[in-house]
This record gives sequence, C-alpha cells and structure tokens, in this order.
Amino acid sequence: MNEDSFLAGLRQRLPVASADVVIGPGDDCAAITGADHDLLLLALDQIVGGRHYFEQDDKGSAATAPELVGRKLLARNLSDIAAMGGTPLFCLVGCALSPRLTHTDDWLNRFFDGLLELAGEYQVQLIGGDLAASRQDDVGSLTIVGSVPADQVCRRSGARPGDLLFVTGQFGDSVNTGHHLHFQPRCREGRWLAEQKMARAMIDVSDGLLLDGLRLGQASNIGLQIDLTTVPLRNPERKVKLAISDGEDYELLFAVAPEKAGRLTESWPFAGTPLARIGTAVQNETPEIIDQQGRSLTRNGQMGYDHYSVDD
Amino acid sequence: MNEDSFLAGLRQRLPVASADVVIGPGDDCAAITGADHDLLLLALDQIVGGRHYFEQDDKGSAATAPELVGRKLLARNLSDIAAMGGTPLFCLVGCALSPRLTHTDDWLNRFFDGLLELAGEYQVQLIGGDLAASRQDDVGSLTIVGSVPADQVCRRSGARPGDLLFVTGQFGDSVNTGHHLHFQPRCREGRWLAEQKMARAMIDVSDGLLLDGLRLGQASNIGLQIDLTTVPLRNPERKVKLAISDGEDYELLFAVAPEKAGRLTESWPFAGTPLARIGTAVQNETPEIIDQQGRSLTRNGQMGYDHYSVDD
Repeated sequence: MNEDSFLAGLRQRLPVASADVVIGPGDDCAAITGADHDLLLLALDQIVGGRHYFEQDDKGSAATAPELVGRKLLARNLSDIAAMGGTPLFCLVGCALSPRLTHTDDWLNRFFDGLLELAGEYQVQLIGGDLAASRQDDVGSLTIVGSVPADQVCRRSGARPGDLLFVTGQFGDSVNTGHHLHFQPRCREGRWLAEQKMARAMIDVSDGLLLDGLRLGQASNIGLQIDLTTVPLRNPERKVKLAISDGEDYELLFAVAPEKAGRLTESWPFAGTPLARIGTAVQNETPEIIDQQGRSLTRNGQMGYDHYSVDD
Repeated sequence: MNEDSFLAGLRQRLPVASADVVIGPGDDCAAITGADHDLLLLALDQIVGGRHYFEQDDKGSAATAPELVGRKLLARNLSDIAAMGGTPLFCLVGCALSPRLTHTDDWLNRFFDGLLELAGEYQVQLIGGDLAASRQDDVGSLTIVGSVPADQVCRRSGARPGDLLFVTGQFGDSVNTGHHLHFQPRCREGRWLAEQKMARAMIDVSDGLLLDGLRLGQASNIGLQIDLTTVPLRNPERKVKLAISDGEDYELLFAVAPEKAGRLTESWPFAGTPLARIGTAVQNETPEIIDQQGRSLTRNGQMGYDHYSVDD
C-alpha cells in the first residue's frame, strides 16, 4: 500500500466540503473557519514503536528514552503547523500501549514529561486524549490545533514557475545523528515567513526533500529544479542523493517570488537556523523534480523517490 | 495502570489553562473558544483490534467486518459530542495497521466505507489524518470536532442534590448483542437536551453506567442513588448489576432539575429512543453510587465498579 495514492483515492470519495472547510485533506494541516478572521489549523500524526523510535527489543539499538518519544510525537505535529505558517495552540493525545509499558506508570509518565516540556516551550496546551491497551505495539497519536490569520496561511499549492526554492536547516542522516528526536520544529520560522508573506507555497519536509518536494510540486502543478550541490547536508559524508530521501528532517521547503528573495535573505532573523536556496520552480508537463542538469530525480511522478538510480 | 487515576495525576501537572480553553481535560470533550459565540468541542478516542472489535485470530470469534470497525471508531467519538450537547462537524483519522491488513488496500477501503457512511448520516466531514505501519496491532484513532452554543454546553459537572437522573436507551450485554458495533450515537438527543436546557449535567455511558455515573458524580460532587429495578436492560436475562458495568452502551446519562422533569418526559421528541428515570442525585460526603436501599455500589469511589459484590 502506498499512502499517497491510497489517500488520493480516499479524497476522491469524500463529498464536496462545506464552506467552513477552508483547506481539506491533502495539505500539512486542514483549516476550518475560526474566530476573528483566523483559520483554525488541524493535523493528526502518529508515532509507532519500532518504526519512529527504538524499542527495548529492537536488535542492536538502545531503547529511545520515553521522554524523547513524547517529545517527538508533539514535535512532528508542530512541524505541520509550522508549514502552514501557523501558531500551535492545543493538542489531544492518544496512546495505545502494550502491557510491558503499562504494568507501571513509569514509561507513560516519562513520555508525558517529554511531551509537556516541549509543549511548554511552544505554549501548546494539552486539552484531551485517550489511553487504551494494545497487545504488542505501542502507538501514539496526536492531534494538533493551531491558528493562522486567514490571509497569511501557507499551502502546498501556490508556487509558480520562476519562484526560488528555499529550505531551512539541513538534510539527511536524521536517525543516525539523533536529529529525528531532538529537532526544533520550525514554528517561529514558518510563522515569520507567513507574516511577511514570503512563502508562496510551503511544506514540511518529513519524508525526504525529494518526496515532499514532489508533493509541493504536485499541489502547485510545477516542477522543481534542484541544484544538488546546494542542498545543505547534516552529515557532510552523506551522499546528497541519499540525504534527499532519508526523511525525518522536519525542515521547511518553500517557494519565494523572485522579487522577494533579496529581502528574505537580508532580513532572515533566525541566526541559528540555516537558510539556503536550493533551486527554482519550473514549468513542467508533469510535476517532477529535476537536478541542475535537468535529469529527473522522480521517475514516475509519485513515489519514484525510492526507485531512482543513485549513479554518483 | 488505572486510566482515571493516571489522567487525574497528569491533569495536576498541566499548567494553568489559558482563557480560550473553556473546558480542559476531564470531560467528554474539551471546549475552546470558536466563532460566533460558539464553543468548539474536541475529543480523541481510539479503537484497538482484539480489544474493541474481533480480529481474524481472536479465538472462536468471527472477525468484525472492517466497515463496522470504521463505523465504531467514529460512533464512539460522536457519542462524546452528544454528551456535551454539541453538533459534530469534522474528524481526523489515524490508522496504524499491521502488514496483514496493508498488503492490499481492501481492509482499509472497507474501514473507510463504514466510517464515511456514518459520517454522511451525521454530516461529519473527514478533513485529515495519517496512515502508519505497525507490526502486530491495528490501532485507529479519531479526533472529532464539533460545536455548541456557549450557553448550552453540557458538562459532567453541574448536577445538584435533588436532580432527577435520566438515561437514554438500554444497558448491558452490548458486545453479545452487537450493540457496540451498530449503536446510533445520541447526537440528536444530546443536542435537543442542550438546546432545551434540560440537562444540568450529562455524560456518555461508554464504560458502564456505574463507572460513568461515578464520573458524573465526582465532577458534580454529588452521589447518585439509582433504583436498579428501573434500569432498562438490553437483554432482560442479564442481571442488572452486571448490565451496569458491562460498558459499551454509548447512551446518555443526565441530571434534570425536578421542575423540568415533567416537561422532559412529555415533550421528548424521539419516539425511537427510550427515556427512563433511573434515580436521583443525592448529597453525599464522597461521590458514590448507592442503590434504592442506600447500599453502596462503588466501594472505594474510584474504580470500585469491578470489585463490588454481586449478591442477588
């Protein structure tokens, strides 16, 4: 099963959305009409033991500290709010936990320690949730609620040929470097970009620059020409073609109108957050990603990223 | 681990909520400030294979049809909106599924068939979600969003000694009778009770009349005297003391001021939904549930429901 194609099919089965659904499924967050000309942003993301973090019984790896599991679950969702240019406000948390974690309250207490610490840093309030018993797997789900002024919301769509493509941070080797547990969601950066109306389209890069870049391209109906020599690498030893599909970067990719790019780089107020221009939006018959020589990096326009040939 | 006591401890660790959190954790839904003097209601509930429905490998039971799994996940959440007197509007769905369900799209398509059919009946729009891979367990989580006029919201708190206690529907034997899969969430009934300002306090009974009654009692700081001979039974053969802790009823329990009870029973517009008076709210030093002879049905005031003696 391919998540993107399944969800695309599912979306086609949904009835026409009512007027108060401003952004439906298919972006980083949904948006509904909120109070005072704000949109309310909503997203749900999950974390699964052994998939998104290490468990005690994962071969050869130390178990991820429960605090970092809770932290990551919230951080993943904060990154979705960041990509819309929003401010995170509230969250609800579901946990389905196996008996090995629930025979005492210790694991879950530490899980919430980590989650609530990050929630405090980002001023997010935990307002609800559910605990359930599973048998084997440990699954967390979190729904994040945020807000953004309606005229500032950033979507995946909206990029135009000629726009310059920028990213925050660095890419690749997230798991080995521990970045996937310790990253700072780019909420301040995303909010600033929205407020300054810098980003014509934006996405959070969680499944790799290639796949998420393609998603932005599909939503905007453009191609992305990426100069692979300019992609900032988290680990300089990592080959760039691997780094752009490693995933778990939780950085922002956004398209900027050419006339705004100068002001963006000059006024970027986040000294600790690298900002890099990595390419250009281009007119293309089918949305795809090409490198600086014009060679396609996404062969079939959908999930090609894991099939493309690594030839350097 | 006891869910209620863990969550009570967790709530004590939360910082003071901001003014836009009108109802924080601990009720059937949280409520935040919405548009146009409405509150926005939010709740998250989960469904776990082998716990909330039968799997192919559950001994001696046919697997629950995927349509009914999806239906139940939404229906559980609709029941939480009903208990606040709200109107359901939107939902987000997370699924963490094992390889035996994801090797084709069939199970998940049928799951969404059932979920979307019920969503259509209740005019709920699916606006987002997430799919993830688990290894063994199948876990669904759903966040429901609804709205209610601020002056009509029903909480667990607010019942007073002397209030009459009413319930919708019948109790007990939900799993054997299939009720847990086919029930109609009481959204229309809950909405009507809120609009008519009939319910001074309300809760959805999902974990048994005894436990959820105790939760209402704790929130309202009252005792509940229940006449066990008046509790409507789904299966007349079922002993009432078992029926009130079987769980999975998804009915409403609510407290009505004595002067309104006549109008309630006379004007109840839902011919297909039984309405029964089962007892009275009483002044008690500690919230507990007593029977018509004044005998406690909840020994320790917390999770006593599964320890009380069955002596008839």
